[in-house]
Amino acid sequence: MTESANAVLIGKKPIMNYVLACITFFHGGAKEVSIKARGRSISRAIDVAEVVRHRFLPDVKIKSIGIGTDQFLPQDSEEGNQGTNVSTIEITLMR
Amino acid sequence: MTESANAVLIGKKPIMNYVLACITFFHGGAKEVSIKARGRSISRAIDVAEVVRHRFLPDVKIKSIGIGTDQFLPQDSEEGNQGTNVSTIEITLMR
Repeated sequence: MTESANAVLIGKKPIMNYVLACITFFHGGAKEVSIKARGRSISRAIDVAEVVRHRFLPDVKIKSIGIGTDQFLPQDSEEGNQGTNVSTIEITLMR
Repeated sequence: MTESANAVLIGKKPIMNYVLACITFFHGGAKEVSIKARGRSISRAIDVAEVVRHRFLPDVKIKSIGIGTDQFLPQDSEEGNQGTNVSTIEITLMR
Protein backbone atom coordinates (compact mmCIF):
# COMPACT_ATOMS: atom_id res chain seq x y z
CA MET A 1 0.00 0.00 0.00
CA THR A 2 1.25 3.48 -0.77
CA GLU A 3 1.42 6.09 1.95
CA SER A 4 -1.22 8.76 1.86
CA ALA A 5 -2.05 11.72 4.07
CA ASN A 6 -5.80 11.12 4.14
CA ALA A 7 -6.25 7.43 4.84
CA VAL A 8 -9.22 5.67 6.40
CA LEU A 9 -8.29 2.21 7.69
CA ILE A 10 -11.27 -0.12 7.73
CA GLY A 11 -11.69 -2.33 10.80
CA LYS A 12 -14.59 -3.95 12.60
CA LYS A 13 -16.64 -0.86 13.46
CA PRO A 14 -19.99 -0.05 11.80
CA ILE A 15 -19.72 1.19 8.22
CA MET A 16 -21.10 4.63 9.04
CA ASN A 17 -18.11 5.38 11.31
CA TYR A 18 -15.80 5.07 8.30
CA VAL A 19 -18.22 6.91 5.99
CA LEU A 20 -18.19 9.81 8.45
CA ALA A 21 -14.38 9.76 8.56
CA CYS A 22 -14.25 10.06 4.74
CA ILE A 23 -16.81 12.88 4.68
CA THR A 24 -14.89 14.72 7.41
CA PHE A 25 -11.70 14.58 5.31
CA PHE A 26 -13.50 15.94 2.24
CA HIS A 27 -15.26 18.68 4.22
CA GLY A 28 -11.84 19.63 5.62
CA GLY A 29 -10.69 20.39 2.09
CA ALA A 30 -9.09 17.09 1.11
CA LYS A 31 -9.00 16.40 -2.63
CA GLU A 32 -8.28 12.69 -2.16
CA VAL A 33 -9.11 10.13 0.51
CA SER A 34 -7.77 6.58 0.55
CA ILE A 35 -9.84 3.75 2.00
CA LYS A 36 -7.63 0.82 3.00
CA ALA A 37 -8.60 -2.64 4.20
CA ARG A 38 -7.21 -6.13 4.64
CA GLY A 39 -8.76 -9.58 4.57
CA ARG A 40 -12.42 -9.82 5.52
CA SER A 41 -12.73 -6.05 5.94
CA ILE A 42 -12.31 -5.61 2.18
CA SER A 43 -16.03 -5.94 1.40
CA ARG A 44 -16.72 -3.32 4.08
CA ALA A 45 -14.23 -0.95 2.37
CA ILE A 46 -16.26 -1.17 -0.84
CA ASP A 47 -19.48 -0.60 1.12
CA VAL A 48 -17.93 2.58 2.56
CA ALA A 49 -16.83 3.86 -0.87
CA GLU A 50 -20.27 3.16 -2.35
CA VAL A 51 -22.18 4.84 0.49
CA VAL A 52 -19.92 7.94 0.38
CA ARG A 53 -20.39 8.28 -3.39
CA HIS A 54 -24.06 7.43 -3.76
CA ARG A 55 -25.64 8.74 -0.59
CA PHE A 56 -23.53 11.68 0.61
CA LEU A 57 -21.05 13.11 -1.91
CA PRO A 58 -22.20 12.53 -5.50
CA ASP A 59 -19.33 14.67 -6.85
CA VAL A 60 -16.79 12.22 -5.47
CA LYS A 61 -15.29 9.84 -8.04
CA ILE A 62 -13.15 6.74 -7.76
CA LYS A 63 -9.62 7.72 -8.77
CA SER A 64 -8.08 4.27 -8.49
CA ILE A 65 -8.47 0.85 -6.93
CA GLY A 66 -5.43 -1.25 -6.11
CA ILE A 67 -5.19 -4.75 -4.70
CA GLY A 68 -2.21 -6.51 -3.17
CA THR A 69 -0.99 -9.10 -0.71
CA ASP A 70 0.50 -8.58 2.75
CA GLN A 71 2.60 -11.39 4.13
CA PHE A 72 2.65 -12.02 7.85
CA LEU A 73 5.68 -13.93 9.10
CA PRO A 74 5.19 -15.54 12.48
CA GLN A 75 7.63 -14.37 15.17
CA ASP A 76 9.04 -17.83 15.79
CA SER A 77 9.69 -18.19 12.07
CA GLU A 78 11.25 -21.51 11.08
CA GLU A 79 12.52 -22.63 7.70
CA GLY A 80 9.71 -23.75 5.46
CA ASN A 81 7.25 -21.65 7.42
CA GLN A 82 5.86 -19.30 4.78
CA GLY A 83 3.64 -17.20 7.01
CA THR A 84 0.14 -16.12 6.10
CA ASN A 85 -0.91 -14.15 3.04
CA VAL A 86 -3.65 -11.58 3.42
CA SER A 87 -5.19 -9.68 0.51
CA THR A 88 -5.43 -5.91 0.69
CA ILE A 89 -7.36 -3.21 -1.12
CA GLU A 90 -6.86 0.54 -1.44
CA ILE A 91 -9.67 2.62 -2.93
CA THR A 92 -8.72 6.23 -3.64
CA LEU A 93 -11.65 8.66 -3.85
CA MET A 94 -11.25 12.13 -5.33
CA ARG A 95 -13.49 15.15 -5.85
CA MET B 1 -21.43 -5.44 -13.87
CA THR B 2 -20.61 -5.65 -17.56
CA GLU B 3 -21.18 -8.87 -19.43
CA SER B 4 -18.11 -10.85 -20.33
CA ALA B 5 -17.53 -14.18 -22.03
CA ASN B 6 -14.94 -15.43 -19.57
CA ALA B 7 -16.38 -14.78 -16.14
CA VAL B 8 -15.65 -16.55 -12.88
CA LEU B 9 -18.36 -15.93 -10.30
CA ILE B 10 -17.05 -16.22 -6.76
CA GLY B 11 -19.20 -18.10 -4.25
CA LYS B 12 -18.58 -20.09 -1.10
CA LYS B 13 -16.30 -22.81 -2.49
CA PRO B 14 -12.60 -23.04 -1.63
CA ILE B 15 -10.44 -20.41 -3.31
CA MET B 16 -8.48 -22.96 -5.34
CA ASN B 17 -11.64 -23.99 -7.24
CA TYR B 18 -11.93 -20.45 -8.63
CA VAL B 19 -8.17 -20.16 -9.21
CA LEU B 20 -8.35 -23.33 -11.29
CA ALA B 21 -11.30 -21.92 -13.26
CA CYS B 22 -9.28 -18.80 -14.12
CA ILE B 23 -6.21 -20.82 -15.13
CA THR B 24 -8.38 -23.07 -17.31
CA PHE B 25 -9.74 -20.02 -19.17
CA PHE B 26 -6.23 -18.67 -19.80
CA HIS B 27 -4.89 -22.08 -20.88
CA GLY B 28 -7.83 -22.29 -23.27
CA GLY B 29 -6.54 -19.18 -25.03
CA ALA B 30 -8.50 -16.47 -23.25
CA LYS B 31 -6.86 -13.04 -23.22
CA GLU B 32 -9.09 -11.73 -20.46
CA VAL B 33 -10.88 -13.29 -17.50
CA SER B 34 -13.29 -11.43 -15.22
CA ILE B 35 -13.60 -12.36 -11.56
CA LYS B 36 -16.93 -11.21 -10.14
CA ALA B 37 -18.18 -11.25 -6.56
CA ARG B 38 -20.82 -9.75 -4.31
CA GLY B 39 -20.95 -8.95 -0.62
CA ARG B 40 -18.79 -11.07 1.65
CA SER B 41 -17.32 -13.00 -1.28
CA ILE B 42 -15.48 -9.85 -2.39
CA SER B 43 -12.39 -10.52 -0.27
CA ARG B 44 -12.27 -14.04 -1.72
CA ALA B 45 -12.32 -12.56 -5.26
CA ILE B 46 -9.18 -10.57 -4.45
CA ASP B 47 -7.55 -13.68 -2.96
CA VAL B 48 -8.26 -15.52 -6.23
CA ALA B 49 -6.77 -12.72 -8.37
CA GLU B 50 -3.67 -12.54 -6.18
CA VAL B 51 -3.09 -16.30 -6.16
CA VAL B 52 -3.51 -16.53 -9.96
CA ARG B 53 -1.05 -13.70 -10.55
CA HIS B 54 1.59 -14.47 -7.93
CA ARG B 55 1.61 -18.25 -7.76
CA PHE B 56 0.53 -19.57 -11.15
CA LEU B 57 0.55 -17.06 -14.01
CA PRO B 58 3.09 -14.26 -13.42
CA ASP B 59 2.47 -12.86 -16.91
CA VAL B 60 -1.14 -12.06 -16.02
CA LYS B 61 -1.82 -8.41 -15.17
CA ILE B 62 -4.79 -6.62 -13.69
CA LYS B 63 -6.53 -4.79 -16.50
CA SER B 64 -9.18 -3.09 -14.40
CA ILE B 65 -11.05 -3.23 -11.12
CA GLY B 66 -14.59 -1.92 -10.86
CA ILE B 67 -16.88 -1.65 -7.86
CA GLY B 68 -20.60 -1.11 -7.75
CA THR B 69 -23.84 -1.68 -5.88
CA ASP B 70 -26.58 -4.21 -6.62
CA GLN B 71 -29.99 -3.49 -5.20
CA PHE B 72 -32.25 -6.33 -4.18
CA LEU B 73 -35.94 -5.49 -4.04
CA PRO B 74 -38.04 -7.89 -1.99
CA GLN B 75 -40.83 -9.62 -3.93
CA ASP B 76 -43.57 -8.24 -1.68
CA SER B 77 -42.21 -4.76 -2.23
CA GLU B 78 -44.17 -2.05 -0.47
CA GLU B 79 -43.76 1.70 -0.63
CA GLY B 80 -40.90 2.89 1.51
CA ASN B 81 -39.27 -0.50 1.31
CA GLN B 82 -35.88 0.28 -0.22
CA GLY B 83 -34.57 -3.25 -0.51
CA THR B 84 -31.03 -4.26 0.34
CA ASN B 85 -27.88 -2.85 -1.19
CA VAL B 86 -24.98 -5.23 -1.83
CA SER B 87 -21.54 -4.12 -2.99
CA THR B 88 -20.00 -5.81 -6.01
CA ILE B 89 -16.53 -6.10 -7.50
CA GLU B 90 -15.29 -7.09 -10.93
CA ILE B 91 -11.57 -7.74 -11.40
CA THR B 92 -10.50 -8.17 -15.03
CA LEU B 93 -7.24 -10.05 -15.54
CA MET B 94 -5.39 -9.99 -18.86
CA ARG B 95 -2.27 -11.60 -20.24
